[in-house]
Amino acid sequence: MTWEEARRLFPVLNRIAYLNAGTFGPLALPTIQAMEAELEVAATSGRIGHAYFERVLAERAGLRERLAALVGVEPAQIALSSSTTDGCNIVLAGLELAPGDEIITTSEEHFGLLGPLQASGAHIVVTDPDPEAIVAAVTPRTRLLALSHVLWTSGRTLPVRELRDRSGLPILVDGAQSVGAIRVDASGLDYYTISGQKWLCGPDSTGALVVAEPDRLRVARPSYFAQSSYEPTGRFEPREGAARFDSNWLSAASIAGLLAALGVAPRWCYERAAEQAARCRELLEPHADLVAGDATLVSFRTEDPPAVVKRLAERDVQVREIPKTGLVRVSCGWWTGEDDLQRLVDGIRS
Amino acid sequence: MTWEEARRLFPVLNRIAYLNAGTFGPLALPTIQAMEAELEVAATSGRIGHAYFERVLAERAGLRERLAALVGVEPAQIALSSSTTDGCNIVLAGLELAPGDEIITTSEEHFGLLGPLQASGAHIVVTDPDPEAIVAAVTPRTRLLALSHVLWTSGRTLPVRELRDRSGLPILVDGAQSVGAIRVDASGLDYYTISGQKWLCGPDSTGALVVAEPDRLRVARPSYFAQSSYEPTGRFEPREGAARFDSNWLSAASIAGLLAALGVAPRWCYERAAEQAARCRELLEPHADLVAGDATLVSFRTEDPPAVVKRLAERDVQVREIPKTGLVRVSCGWWTGEDDLQRLVDGIRS
Repeated sequence: MTWEEARRLFPVLNRIAYLNAGTFGPLALPTIQAMEAELEVAATSGRIGHAYFERVLAERAGLRERLAALVGVEPAQIALSSSTTDGCNIVLAGLELAPGDEIITTSEEHFGLLGPLQASGAHIVVTDPDPEAIVAAVTPRTRLLALSHVLWTSGRTLPVRELRDRSGLPILVDGAQSVGAIRVDASGLDYYTISGQKWLCGPDSTGALVVAEPDRLRVARPSYFAQSSYEPTGRFEPREGAARFDSNWLSAASIAGLLAALGVAPRWCYERAAEQAARCRELLEPHADLVAGDATLVSFRTEDPPAVVKRLAERDVQVREIPKTGLVRVSCGWWTGEDDLQRLVDGIRS
Repeated sequence: MTWEEARRLFPVLNRIAYLNAGTFGPLALPTIQAMEAELEVAATSGRIGHAYFERVLAERAGLRERLAALVGVEPAQIALSSSTTDGCNIVLAGLELAPGDEIITTSEEHFGLLGPLQASGAHIVVTDPDPEAIVAAVTPRTRLLALSHVLWTSGRTLPVRELRDRSGLPILVDGAQSVGAIRVDASGLDYYTISGQKWLCGPDSTGALVVAEPDRLRVARPSYFAQSSYEPTGRFEPREGAARFDSNWLSAASIAGLLAALGVAPRWCYERAAEQAARCRELLEPHADLVAGDATLVSFRTEDPPAVVKRLAERDVQVREIPKTGLVRVSCGWWTGEDDLQRLVDGIRS
């Protein structure tokens, strides 16, 4: 598949310079069609009967396998979730931390991680998103590192594997801005969250959580999928593997849509996305105060981010601001073209 | 709208005697169309831009209002969730119970309640689903009653308001088999879970949770919606009302679908559903060993439930078994017709 062929699969790109996949990715026609086909099945044959449930559960298993392969782990290490926030909550609630325990995070994290951290009851230690600062913050009371693989603010990549090795601590990696954007190898990382709706261009409210050692995390928030058998008190035998952490039923349409979206991404997607992000930096450099970053998000400082975002939106160039930072953020995907970036630059210069 | 007109809105009812709304309700054409319309918008205009998010958030607020009106509470007492299980987890995690605390539940609850009860760490006291037995089980250590409004096994209704009054304890009501099936007044009840996908005939993974006094429950599992502002440690100011417990982003299609489904249900839906359940009991009485029940689920004992379910399914009569109970369960909705029930009886007699 050539880039031109792949790009034509996204109707929305005809009109919009779609530069906010960091919130929601564009939806491809095969993704929409897969979802519509499942809606038709539900309408005419019903969400009912043994064969229907067997099929949806088989597709659920297929999705688990695909996501596992995507990030280099075993299917038994994948829980299906509805968001990266969901994944963070599953981990933080399951760890059963106490106020004397410490978790190290960075000063540039999203509330999707920070909220669950706060709810854990542990003491949250905030450092600069700098490897030396993070390692220096470790104390005998530190129980976990919890931070992004790619910072949602600047697009900077943190060396998560190195941080785990140097600290000797388990790590929870927020993969909201990494999976689908850059090549991710989550093997050997303790907990890693995946969003289906951002860089993977899947349906809303889909995602996953890698749990490297499922037996070592408590099921603190059981769904029906948590158990293989249970007693009248609710005491239960957990299912095998990370499936015990599956947070909810997923509609047949959501599963089919995410599988279709995963099928749309070309082999060369990461290289192409990196090229487009580099090209975006190159084009913006003379016109904008760029902040350092190396993944597929490109951010720049400006006096009035909401005004810049609004002005660009009037030209159908869609980017976002990062509140309280003075930053405007541009998301470059493998589907991004030179024309999108030129429209961005024209809008900024206007 | 006459019954015939309303029934014709469900394509699936043309072929299938759809008697398992207790798992998933049938989907009406307006519901499917509302979801497809949102998928088209997402495909062509994108899940992007200020106007899009403003609109989805406004529809989210509209859904909160509709669900509040449905069960007789204030919109500020409604959290949007993705299932009744989700609602139970939000409550049980938020109550911060200790092993010395007791919760009373009944011997006929679904794992969607039992799992979260077990995960709470409290001691779970199981009684017969009998008001006297429940009240007799109260001790000075009891912190909560947690039980179904309508038992998923038999369709028996429990007097939840009376139980709350007599015990003087807060109550968590699992509304999986009540909301949409029988008229529900959740006002004055502490916590009440709602499923969108069952008797309300809405999209998969939709639902809500009533929290009568949002300020008195901890936000133990924050999503982005939990906060109105936050600090770098994640410490946050909760949003006003029960919206702070909203468990996740809901797709525009899910919101539109559930709103459409709520619009399909006729004024007379509860009376008609009760009539059909009574008629089902009347028709089955000579041929089946019915168990006592009074809501819209009708269950009967049989030697080999899976075989009965399978035999009926071969005739496109869809019911379910309740594992480990010897019961086959029939769900009667306002859309159920005499023909559906006759097909059921014919299948059982064959």
